[in-house]
Amino acid sequence: MSEPVQRQRTIGVLGGMGPAATVDFLAKIIAATPAVRDQDHVPVIVRNVPQIPDRSEAILAGGDGPFRPMLEGLKVLEQAGAEVLAIPCNTAHHWHARLSRVCERPILHIAEAAAAKLAGRRGAPVGLMATRGTLASGLYQARLGALVLPDEEAQAAIDAAIAAVKAGRPGRAEAESAARRLLAGGARSLLLACTELPLAMAGGSLGGYCVDATLALAEACVAASRARPDPVPV
Amino acid sequence: MSEPVQRQRTIGVLGGMGPAATVDFLAKIIAATPAVRDQDHVPVIVRNVPQIPDRSEAILAGGDGPFRPMLEGLKVLEQAGAEVLAIPCNTAHHWHARLSRVCERPILHIAEAAAAKLAGRRGAPVGLMATRGTLASGLYQARLGALVLPDEEAQAAIDAAIAAVKAGRPGRAEAESAARRLLAGGARSLLLACTELPLAMAGGSLGGYCVDATLALAEACVAASRARPDPVPV
Repeated sequence: MSEPVQRQRTIGVLGGMGPAATVDFLAKIIAATPAVRDQDHVPVIVRNVPQIPDRSEAILAGGDGPFRPMLEGLKVLEQAGAEVLAIPCNTAHHWHARLSRVCERPILHIAEAAAAKLAGRRGAPVGLMATRGTLASGLYQARLGALVLPDEEAQAAIDAAIAAVKAGRPGRAEAESAARRLLAGGARSLLLACTELPLAMAGGSLGGYCVDATLALAEACVAASRARPDPVPV
Repeated sequence: MSEPVQRQRTIGVLGGMGPAATVDFLAKIIAATPAVRDQDHVPVIVRNVPQIPDRSEAILAGGDGPFRPMLEGLKVLEQAGAEVLAIPCNTAHHWHARLSRVCERPILHIAEAAAAKLAGRRGAPVGLMATRGTLASGLYQARLGALVLPDEEAQAAIDAAIAAVKAGRPGRAEAESAARRLLAGGARSLLLACTELPLAMAGGSLGGYCVDATLALAEACVAASRARPDPVPV
């Protein structure tokens, strides 16, 4: 005997930034869902379009190239039945407000979700690990208290770790090198605010310090899918 | 300087059967793609709708419940821009011919892809690990030479392994128990013909015997996305 399937909202995921990070995000949605059979899981539509121009390059150059293809992807998701939208790319949230104004469905915000996870640690300095574009956009600086920002050497190591994961390599040595510099600089925890970084840090020895923005967004998706009576964007 | 991005066909994936298996499939598409940056990856649209009724139960009961929701999912993928379709669920291929007749885009066939991978081993008996529905549908018996089919004890262990993965547990002990019975029964290799089984067998000691139908379909997707001038369904 099968129990009736509870109605759940369909999550639309604009993915491909990068592709491996999107898979990690989908796995985290599944892991965050209490389920014993296929039918208990959150319905998800993913548009994994890795051809969206580099977000960090665009921000640093004052360009707007990613906006239009991201909007087109979100519109496809809405037309395909997505009820709540999510973008597993921190840097892309530079365009969150503008995208939200022209989308019909709510777009969950990865930095809001991560900040909610960190709320209990207010006061203890957080080391921010992100792309140069995310740092320039101020996404996290606006939402968090005491931050330890990477110096040039740490940022270069973060860039190298992200590039490694996008090319299918581990990137752990580079990510851990940056993480240790942030901890030495006074950080008490590390915010992984680029969706490649949880992959780079996986299986390493610094997991206990890490707060994972990808996981925060995945948990927000599960909550929004199952919320009653209306979706509750974080 | 970025190199120009090669045009690649968009793969539409009807997922959610089960959700973890779909994530495994997407990861295998990425791993099978030669890429050094996001923009090199295959564009993928995934409709992960785990609410599709159980395929194996339907086949064994002579029911047709999964056909309509699968067709609706494929139509959504076509409308969203998918150019080649794939279904990472072996049992669902019971409906492949009927779905193909009413879809505009080609649907790659997981058993054709797996059979192509096994072509070099013709003659050596293959142990078939699949759902009862896949066995009843004859999908693989029609395409492969010498097969070793599971007895009731091995099949019960396969069923338990699949159910374990769908519920978020490993299922390795059950899967390996079935695998060892097939090897003792004369199989020289093991065809993992249910998309939960590569997850159940992961990290075990029998990997060297395994041929992974999920991986075969993922490789077929990458080939179809990059094929010139027209998609080449396997």
